[in-house]
Amino acid sequence: MSMKAPRGTVDILPEEAAKWQFVENKIKEVCSRYHFDEIRTPLFEHTEVFQRGVGDSTDIVQKEMYTFEDRGGRSLTLRPEGTASVVRSFIEHKMHGNPSQPVKLYYFAQMFRYERPQKGRMRQLNQFGVEAMGSADPALDAEVIDLAMSCYRELGLKSLKLVINSLGDQDSRENHRQALVDHFTPHKDELCSDCRTRLTQNPLRILDCKTDREHPALKTAPSILDYLNEESIAYFEKVKTYLTMMGIDYEVDPNLVRGLDYYNHTAFEIMSEAEGFGAITTLAGGGRYNGLVEELGGPATTGIGFGMGLERLLMALEAEHIEIPADQDLDCFLVAVGAEAERTSVQLVHDLRKNGIQVDRDYQGRKTKAQFKAADRYRAKYVLVLGDSEIQQQLVNVKEMNTGNQEQVPLTQLVEYLQGKLSGGNVHA
Amino acid sequence: MSMKAPRGTVDILPEEAAKWQFVENKIKEVCSRYHFDEIRTPLFEHTEVFQRGVGDSTDIVQKEMYTFEDRGGRSLTLRPEGTASVVRSFIEHKMHGNPSQPVKLYYFAQMFRYERPQKGRMRQLNQFGVEAMGSADPALDAEVIDLAMSCYRELGLKSLKLVINSLGDQDSRENHRQALVDHFTPHKDELCSDCRTRLTQNPLRILDCKTDREHPALKTAPSILDYLNEESIAYFEKVKTYLTMMGIDYEVDPNLVRGLDYYNHTAFEIMSEAEGFGAITTLAGGGRYNGLVEELGGPATTGIGFGMGLERLLMALEAEHIEIPADQDLDCFLVAVGAEAERTSVQLVHDLRKNGIQVDRDYQGRKTKAQFKAADRYRAKYVLVLGDSEIQQQLVNVKEMNTGNQEQVPLTQLVEYLQGKLSGGNVHA
Repeated sequence: MSMKAPRGTVDILPEEAAKWQFVENKIKEVCSRYHFDEIRTPLFEHTEVFQRGVGDSTDIVQKEMYTFEDRGGRSLTLRPEGTASVVRSFIEHKMHGNPSQPVKLYYFAQMFRYERPQKGRMRQLNQFGVEAMGSADPALDAEVIDLAMSCYRELGLKSLKLVINSLGDQDSRENHRQALVDHFTPHKDELCSDCRTRLTQNPLRILDCKTDREHPALKTAPSILDYLNEESIAYFEKVKTYLTMMGIDYEVDPNLVRGLDYYNHTAFEIMSEAEGFGAITTLAGGGRYNGLVEELGGPATTGIGFGMGLERLLMALEAEHIEIPADQDLDCFLVAVGAEAERTSVQLVHDLRKNGIQVDRDYQGRKTKAQFKAADRYRAKYVLVLGDSEIQQQLVNVKEMNTGNQEQVPLTQLVEYLQGKLSGGNVHA
Repeated sequence: MSMKAPRGTVDILPEEAAKWQFVENKIKEVCSRYHFDEIRTPLFEHTEVFQRGVGDSTDIVQKEMYTFEDRGGRSLTLRPEGTASVVRSFIEHKMHGNPSQPVKLYYFAQMFRYERPQKGRMRQLNQFGVEAMGSADPALDAEVIDLAMSCYRELGLKSLKLVINSLGDQDSRENHRQALVDHFTPHKDELCSDCRTRLTQNPLRILDCKTDREHPALKTAPSILDYLNEESIAYFEKVKTYLTMMGIDYEVDPNLVRGLDYYNHTAFEIMSEAEGFGAITTLAGGGRYNGLVEELGGPATTGIGFGMGLERLLMALEAEHIEIPADQDLDCFLVAVGAEAERTSVQLVHDLRKNGIQVDRDYQGRKTKAQFKAADRYRAKYVLVLGDSEIQQQLVNVKEMNTGNQEQVPLTQLVEYLQGKLSGGNVHA
C-alpha cells in the first residue's frame, strides 16, 4: 500500500507550519494596510471557468489540469490558478454593482497543476494573490505592484528584481500580433509543434517557448513596445512614473508576455536574485486583464492582479538566510510527582490554560527526572513542580529555567504570578 | 455557461471572511495554550488511505467520496475527513520516533463529501481538528475534549451539550458485537438493505441508521456499557472523573457510536442546543482510535482526536446572537484635489502604508465631494485632504471623522501624527 503523500505533494510539518503562519500573518497585515479584503473560493470550479478564464490554448488548460467528473456527471477542475475563480465569484455576486469601487480582494489558496515535480514546482502549490477590479487607473497598477514588493520587503527579502512590460490595449495587441504572424510564418517549419499551433492561436506565446528559445527568429521578433499606440504608451509611462515615485526599481523587458490569454497593458514579474535560489527564479507574476470579466460572462470591467508562490517565497527567505521569528518555546511545563499530584494536575493545567497560559504536562507516566527532561526538550521557560508536600500546603514550586530561580507560589496566586512573569512576550492570551 | 460555484460549494466573501479569520485566530490561540502544533496535509490522498483509514464499509467511502484518476492513472481522493491524512503523515514522517510524545497536532482543512447539499452540510466544508498520538492516558482524552469545549466557550457559545460514550477496548467491542449479531439476526428481514450488510460487516453501525431508527429492535439492542470489561470500565471512569474535575458537564449516551470503524474507548460529540440552530445539531465529534496507525501500516500507536465543523460553528454563533468583533472600519482615506495632488498622493499613500498605517484613496477619478462620500462608505476614521495649497505649504489637512476636528499637519510629521492617533486600536502594523 502506498502510504506516502501523492507524487508532487508534501506535508507541511509543525516546524515548517509555524513559518507559514508567520509569513501569512505578515502578508495579511500588509493587505489590510493596502485595504484589500480576503475572499475564499471553492477548491474546484466547473471546468469551463478555467477553459475560458485561463484560455483554451494555454499549457495549463491543455496539459496540466486535474479534471474529473463528480458523481452527478459534472466536469469539475481543481483550481490551477487564482484569477478565474475570483472573477467567477465577482460576477456571481454582482460585485460590479458594489458602491465601493474598485473591489480589492486577496486570497490564500492551494493550486493544482499536473507537471513534472521539481524544486519550487509542485503539483499542489500554495499561492497568495490579489485581484483589484473596477478601475482603469494606472496608479492602481502601481499600487498592486507596490503591495507585492512590500510583502517581500517586509519579510526581509533584498535580492529582488522587478520586471515590467506593456502588452498595450486591444488595438496595439492586434497590430503586434499581425507583425508576429508575418515575422514567424517564413520560419514556421523550423518551430516546435506547439509553436506552429501558437502561430495561429496566440503568436505572442511563441516568445515564451522553452523549446524554441534559442531560435534566431525569436531574437529578432518585433517588440510589442514598437506597436503600442499613443494611449497605451501614455498608460505605461504613468505606471513607470508612479513606480519611480514610490522608490521601486524596475527593468522593462519587452519579451515578458506571461502565459495567459487575458492580459493587456501592464504585465510584471518579480524574480529572486539570491545566490543559490535555484533555476526557477520567478516569485510572483501578474498584470492587467481588462477583458476577462466580460469573457467570463460579466459586464465589461477592468482588472489587475498577481499570484505569488508561497513555497518559492519560503525558498527565497532561506536563500537569503532570513530567520523567521517563530517562538517555539513552551511557556510552562507541569511536573507532577505522585498519584495525588497527577490527579490534581488535570484541574491545574485546565485552569492555567483557561487563563491564557500556555502549559503542557506529561502523558507518558514518566518518572520525575524524565518529566524534567521532557520540559527541557520543549524549551519550557517555567517548570511547575507539584508533589505531595506542595499539595498539602496548596503551593506550586515554580522554577524559572534560564535563571534557575525557584519560588513557592500559593495555588490561588499561580495564575496571576505566571501572567505577570509571562507578560510582554505572551502571544497565547 | 455555468458561471456559478459548483453545487454544494460557496464563496466566502469579505465580510464573512473577516469572521472566519477571527474564529480561526481564536482557535489557533487556544491550540497554542494546549501545546498543539499545526500540520497541513495535501488536499488529496491515494484513495486507499481513506478506504483503509475511514473504513470500506462506511457511507463516506461507499457513497460520498470525490475520487478520480490523475493523468498518471493514480486513483486519488479529495480528503473527506481529517484523521486518515494526518495519520498517513504521522507514519510517513515516522513521528512515533519523535523524542517528544504524545505528538499533538491540529489542522484547518477543507473536506469534500458528495452529499445532498443542505444547511450545515455542504459538499466542500471546512473543519478544524486535532489528533494526539502516542499516549493511552485517559487524561489526554479529557484534555482533547477540554480543548474542543474551550474553543466554543471562548468564542462565547453557551448552549452546548457534550455527550460521551465508551466503545471499550478490542475485547469489549468483540463481545458487544456478538451480542448485537445475536440480537438483530431474528429481525434481519425487517431491516433496511444497508443494515442487512452492516449485520455482517459492522453491526454497531445499525444503531446509527437513519432508516431503521424507529424499529423496536434498535431500542432494545444490547448496550455497549453492559459489555465493557474491567479495564475499559476503569478507563471510562477516569475520563469522566477528569471532566468533572475540569468543571465540564456531560451526558453518557450508550448509542453514541460514531460512523467510523476505528474508534475504541472514548467517543464524544458536542451539540448545539441553541434555539433555531437547525436540524443537524452536531458541532464536533471525535474519539479514541488506538488501532488506526497500525491499520494504515505504522507501528501500534494510540491516538485520539476530533473534527469540528467551522460552518456549523459560525451558524451556532449566529444562533446565539454572538457578535464577532471584526473591525472593518478604515483608518485613513486620502482625498486628493487637483492633478498635482493626485500625483503626490501616489507617493504619500505608499509612505503611510510603509509605516504601518492603513490608508486607501480614490481610483475612479471622482470629484472631491464623491471622494468624501467614498471615505464615508469605508467608515474612515481620518480623512486626509491634499490640494494645491496644501502641497505648496507641504501640509495635509487631517479631519477626524467622529469629532469633526481638523488639523493642518506638516507632511514630514504626518506618519508620526497618525501613528499617535491610531495607536491603541492599531491592528495593521
